[in-house]
Amino acid sequence: MRSNGRDLARKLLEGDRISLARAISWVENESDGAEAILDALYPRTGAAYRVGVTGPPGAGKSTLVGRLARSYWEAGMRVGVVAVDPSSPFTHGALLGDRIRFQDLPNDPRLFVRSMASRGSPGGLAFRTGEACDLLDAFGMEIILVETVGVGQSELDVARAVHTTVVVLVPESGDEVQAMKAGLMEIGHVFAVNKADREGAARITRNLKDMLRLRPPARDSWVPLVQPVSALRGDHLDELLDAIGKHRLHLEEAGALGRLKRERAAQRIREIVESELAATFWKREEVPARMKDALARIEEGRSSPYREAADLLHPAGKEKKTR
Amino acid sequence: MRSNGRDLARKLLEGDRISLARAISWVENESDGAEAILDALYPRTGAAYRVGVTGPPGAGKSTLVGRLARSYWEAGMRVGVVAVDPSSPFTHGALLGDRIRFQDLPNDPRLFVRSMASRGSPGGLAFRTGEACDLLDAFGMEIILVETVGVGQSELDVARAVHTTVVVLVPESGDEVQAMKAGLMEIGHVFAVNKADREGAARITRNLKDMLRLRPPARDSWVPLVQPVSALRGDHLDELLDAIGKHRLHLEEAGALGRLKRERAAQRIREIVESELAATFWKREEVPARMKDALARIEEGRSSPYREAADLLHPAGKEKKTR
Repeated sequence: MRSNGRDLARKLLEGDRISLARAISWVENESDGAEAILDALYPRTGAAYRVGVTGPPGAGKSTLVGRLARSYWEAGMRVGVVAVDPSSPFTHGALLGDRIRFQDLPNDPRLFVRSMASRGSPGGLAFRTGEACDLLDAFGMEIILVETVGVGQSELDVARAVHTTVVVLVPESGDEVQAMKAGLMEIGHVFAVNKADREGAARITRNLKDMLRLRPPARDSWVPLVQPVSALRGDHLDELLDAIGKHRLHLEEAGALGRLKRERAAQRIREIVESELAATFWKREEVPARMKDALARIEEGRSSPYREAADLLHPAGKEKKTR
Repeated sequence: MRSNGRDLARKLLEGDRISLARAISWVENESDGAEAILDALYPRTGAAYRVGVTGPPGAGKSTLVGRLARSYWEAGMRVGVVAVDPSSPFTHGALLGDRIRFQDLPNDPRLFVRSMASRGSPGGLAFRTGEACDLLDAFGMEIILVETVGVGQSELDVARAVHTTVVVLVPESGDEVQAMKAGLMEIGHVFAVNKADREGAARITRNLKDMLRLRPPARDSWVPLVQPVSALRGDHLDELLDAIGKHRLHLEEAGALGRLKRERAAQRIREIVESELAATFWKREEVPARMKDALARIEEGRSSPYREAADLLHPAGKEKKTR
């Protein structure tokens, strides 16, 4: 028999990892019952510190996230990892490569790693990722690392759901310009120049610092830090952890930690309300037939989607127009 | 005095490029009047063939789009180009580099190039891009090239608004795996392996062909073509144009060209309806105060966004709960 949401939430709070895994699956698949779990656990969230790790494909994000997770874990912390995979209908979800890439992390109760596929709407992905973090948070994780591919609006949305965003770049030609284009320069609190042993690392580090100096000061006066690292070799990880810690301290001193949770709550309410309004409208009995007629008129070149949308919403308006 | 939408639409149809540029700006900025233009021009759309060019950052998409635009133009066609730039609040919109990157294209009435910034919602971007194509289409362009950075859901949405999608990859380690992850393998009708003079081009070409063979046959039985090119040198462009032409012929023979327009019309209606429903709800007089109360209850740990969204939508439910 399938357990219900409240049961699952209770077991999750008792520290049951299988319930945690199942709850995340429910959230990922938007299953019935996911909302009940999230509703039940919501008041237990807010203690975890959330760190996003983003950057262009190939920058070494996964390796770095693995290193960071291990470092926090070795420091005695409880660590959750959510890796967001752009999904592929072709491969039926996330790629196996991603599911196994963290395999060198220890199998330990203080460590929980999960990949999430980016099925469905991009806005939905950001929320499902945030909700998976909520579950890890309620489970008692102290640090949550969220890895996303850093190009595209949905990834920027994910970045908004974390406290500190680490942007990972590599010393390759134009990487910093691509980062600007993708909007990564605005969201990064810490910039990790990975593969720092490669040629060009000093240049990209200098360029980043120059570009960040040109950036108008952030609302909260945080000045982004740039840290060369080598995720593969494990070089300069302590400095990177230190940079993340500095940003955390900065937020704490500014009393800004609660703001993120408030903003997410407001955004979540907006999203649920809007999706319910839409669902209710499209379920109306007369709508499918009217939609069909509308599309036929457009096809015949007698109307446009703009006019037909207005008519669907305000049938009275249509009466007037055909008079 | 500001011209109205109908005037602008009329001048655009008369071939006035300034009106075309202004109409695209209205669409890009979602200005009042944009819908009136689009509504007026909608029945005049459908003749242009739309080609999307996408791929990871640094693959050489802009150079290739420039080459393709010039080739079509040299063949006597009227060519429109829409380049979608991920925008940056930091740089106040699209990067200058993108606005000037097509500067070597001739200044000619049969050629119109436009960058669009990805401000606003990602779903919105896909639609605004499609609408810019509609304007170029109504203007009389025969070929429309749409360039997007090929990572992220919004770019996949853009790809759905074109007839043929060209995925540009470069012979660098793992590029084809990244393409799979980003869902590019499903959307590509033609794969251009750019920088084909580089080491690894033969390998990626072979890998792509292998991967595409593993792919389940497309609904319309199209088998994607893989073509090595060098956008910078201009090598093998004719073969690439030929591959695009083959896909076009395939769609024409299958009678599939109209389907795209129908699907876009239906999707556009859905989007307008849903955004209107949301706007109407949030404009209700009592909503801001109720939202404020909801957030306060959440902040105090007495509720969750899930419960509050339901209460906002169905106030009666709330009465019952507080009894």
